[in-house]
Amino acid sequence: MTYCVGLALRGGLVMLADTRTNAGVDSVSCYRKLHLFDNLGDRIFAFASAGNLSVTQSAIEILREGMANPDDNSQSLNGAASMFRAAQIVGRALHKARSEIEPELKADNISFDATLLFGGQVRGGPIKLFMIYGTGNFIECGPDTPFLQIGECKYGKPILDRAVRYDTDLLEAVKVGLISFDSTMRSNLAVGMPIDLIVLRPDRFAFELRQRIEADDDYFSRLSDHWSTALKNALSDIPAPPYKPIS
Amino acid sequence: MTYCVGLALRGGLVMLADTRTNAGVDSVSCYRKLHLFDNLGDRIFAFASAGNLSVTQSAIEILREGMANPDDNSQSLNGAASMFRAAQIVGRALHKARSEIEPELKADNISFDATLLFGGQVRGGPIKLFMIYGTGNFIECGPDTPFLQIGECKYGKPILDRAVRYDTDLLEAVKVGLISFDSTMRSNLAVGMPIDLIVLRPDRFAFELRQRIEADDDYFSRLSDHWSTALKNALSDIPAPPYKPIS
Repeated sequence: MTYCVGLALRGGLVMLADTRTNAGVDSVSCYRKLHLFDNLGDRIFAFASAGNLSVTQSAIEILREGMANPDDNSQSLNGAASMFRAAQIVGRALHKARSEIEPELKADNISFDATLLFGGQVRGGPIKLFMIYGTGNFIECGPDTPFLQIGECKYGKPILDRAVRYDTDLLEAVKVGLISFDSTMRSNLAVGMPIDLIVLRPDRFAFELRQRIEADDDYFSRLSDHWSTALKNALSDIPAPPYKPIS
Repeated sequence: MTYCVGLALRGGLVMLADTRTNAGVDSVSCYRKLHLFDNLGDRIFAFASAGNLSVTQSAIEILREGMANPDDNSQSLNGAASMFRAAQIVGRALHKARSEIEPELKADNISFDATLLFGGQVRGGPIKLFMIYGTGNFIECGPDTPFLQIGECKYGKPILDRAVRYDTDLLEAVKVGLISFDSTMRSNLAVGMPIDLIVLRPDRFAFELRQRIEADDDYFSRLSDHWSTALKNALSDIPAPPYKPIS
């Protein structure tokens, strides 16, 4: 399993991804799922991946090789004139990676689906964030619900729904994102530390933060404890239910 | 969809169930999913249901008729000597209701599964809470994780994981349960008000609370607002992440 969240806010982009992969409970490993394409001058991209690891790794490699050795610039992220064009190229790469392996995996009854969060900026346009499906189509994150999740989404969604708005400050959004991860990891063992994090502000074309948060991270532990304590206090501040016993 | 939660605590039993059923988004109705068998003297039972409504309604009716007209007392909840025996009878009734309709529903590709939370007490034994599967087998709720959920469980689970212990006071558990419902209803439209609630203390053989909480319930609205505000305050009390920008 996997949990990744991307937040496209007025102030920029935050993306978080866990690193746990599992094929059954006895085959658990740590793999990077947040992939960064930076030092490109006029463009910068980040990918978070969920689903079949062989498919998402292949898609990222297709894109990386396409940038290193573009036979056809219109199919390379180097040449994409906008984030929308870039999302089309990413969609084609993901669909290609999936299609190549789909018949064999289907025959073996193995899940071949894969999803990417794709965020970044191409000079001249704004930062954008997309959810790219294994079929190659995609949706763009908008200001009404300024986040997208992939993988094990539900446990961590209530705090995002309550606390994230388009105007939320980026570092505040990092806190909310980490709480969302903490809630998810408490409920689903298949999502695990370390967590990879990036923060990107517009027109910088370099990540402001690029952090791996390890299991023993002091800030994360304190955030988790603080949050549990605050929820307990908030609960005890709520008056008792007024519903009357049946007499 | 549905969301129901049962909490089996040192102080007794709390059960909550929503009332929304839907067959697609254009066929939404309000049905009671918390069914009470009380005024029985030496025993008291509560059922919360999820899954195919025709199956769960049939199972409850089989049990109700079995109590009214027992041909075979060993198959009626009247005669069950313990909650364990009662759970066996409930399991058989649910499996019977499912089996009778399963081939037809399967042929039409309609989901026929159904699950019950079954709580209560038979004099001489403790209050118990079970999850009864459509196949007739069941698990009992224990003190390590003193709650069971059916239906749309994930959105409302983090707050239960963080705030409910076996020693949690019953009215405190009602608050946590309502917050769990609030989180779920914000994220999934297929779970909706009103919410039915019962509270049962040991050896009383009558519900202490039996409440329908309507959409305009004043306490519930204040609890929801209070919770959102408390979370926002708790968030702003957490220090900013210490991770350093890349220079």
